[in-house]
Amino acid sequence: MAVANEPSQSIITLDLEGVLIPEVWIAVAEATGIDGLLRTTRDEPDYDVLMRYRLGLLAEHGLGLARIQEVISTLAPMPGAREFLDALRERTQVIILSDTFEQFATPFMRQLGWPTIMCHRLLVDGDDITGYELRQQDQKRRAVEAFQSLNFRILAAGDSYNDTTMLGAASTGFLFRSPANVIAEFPQFRSFTDYDDLLAAFTDLL
Amino acid sequence: MAVANEPSQSIITLDLEGVLIPEVWIAVAEATGIDGLLRTTRDEPDYDVLMRYRLGLLAEHGLGLARIQEVISTLAPMPGAREFLDALRERTQVIILSDTFEQFATPFMRQLGWPTIMCHRLLVDGDDITGYELRQQDQKRRAVEAFQSLNFRILAAGDSYNDTTMLGAASTGFLFRSPANVIAEFPQFRSFTDYDDLLAAFTDLL
Repeated sequence: MAVANEPSQSIITLDLEGVLIPEVWIAVAEATGIDGLLRTTRDEPDYDVLMRYRLGLLAEHGLGLARIQEVISTLAPMPGAREFLDALRERTQVIILSDTFEQFATPFMRQLGWPTIMCHRLLVDGDDITGYELRQQDQKRRAVEAFQSLNFRILAAGDSYNDTTMLGAASTGFLFRSPANVIAEFPQFRSFTDYDDLLAAFTDLL
Repeated sequence: MAVANEPSQSIITLDLEGVLIPEVWIAVAEATGIDGLLRTTRDEPDYDVLMRYRLGLLAEHGLGLARIQEVISTLAPMPGAREFLDALRERTQVIILSDTFEQFATPFMRQLGWPTIMCHRLLVDGDDITGYELRQQDQKRRAVEAFQSLNFRILAAGDSYNDTTMLGAASTGFLFRSPANVIAEFPQFRSFTDYDDLLAAFTDLL
């Protein structure tokens, strides 16, 4: 029986926010006018504190899940994102690894043609968002390692700190539209700003 | 940090041939009139012998990859398969686990809206199919276990012997349009013949 010794099949893992869609909390802040939701991990490095603050703001403004999903439904993927993703999906397998929540991601997934996504989940009681639950710690890196255990070669792209363990675990990791400090800190990852260039770089490796 | 102790997010893993699309070799046999391609693992239990026989027939009839993909492009998923899959993908993540080859699967994936698929690969030199390569042994079961290691709950459906380790490793496994001998041998798996019933059974578990 001819079993592959080395991986000849690939999976491309992509970050979602900043790579294919705008940052959800920022977009919700702008759409609802709730300025407090502009606060990010750069302002509050403790993610749990930040999330509790965000969920508190939602409760205070009476924003239930249905209303937030309605807001998110009015947001669009970044220009060119769908075409980029479609082109990749014709070439190989693509799985989105995101630290967002599935309830926020779904309206975007609909617009992106339902790619596979692995992310986290909000805890919801009726229409009230009561909390959140991470599926697991360092889930992006662990997903890359799980796919490697299935004898896939992994190529990856992301924009931010929470992507760097994924990029490092992959055979090849690329930065896409990263802030200058991330680019400066991780010179080992080639950096792109244009979908066509990133698509060409991935295609070269397939 | 709120990390899930038990999996609250799910992935549905589906077999491809017999569940969403017709058996590819049978369909190619019918489309090309090469009766030898009707031979299956029921006639020749040694998969490697069977595959060498099939690849020999392709070479003998001068059937290159392009022509086979052209034939496959004329084949359609089973009636209702696309709607069933679309409905599932709106509800949760779906990954197809198939023992087919990516070059055969691609024309079907296009028609099914590019769901994620994990399968094997034919070895190709120019347009000649020179051999085949299994990505790994017992890949369906191993994929289920890899997804479980990412804290997903797995629900699965398949029709045949090569699905039973996947069905057994999943939290819940269903048979779909299985031959009577498989249904009789694996009474632990509920058996369905209709997409609506299978969709309802999955939905009940989400």
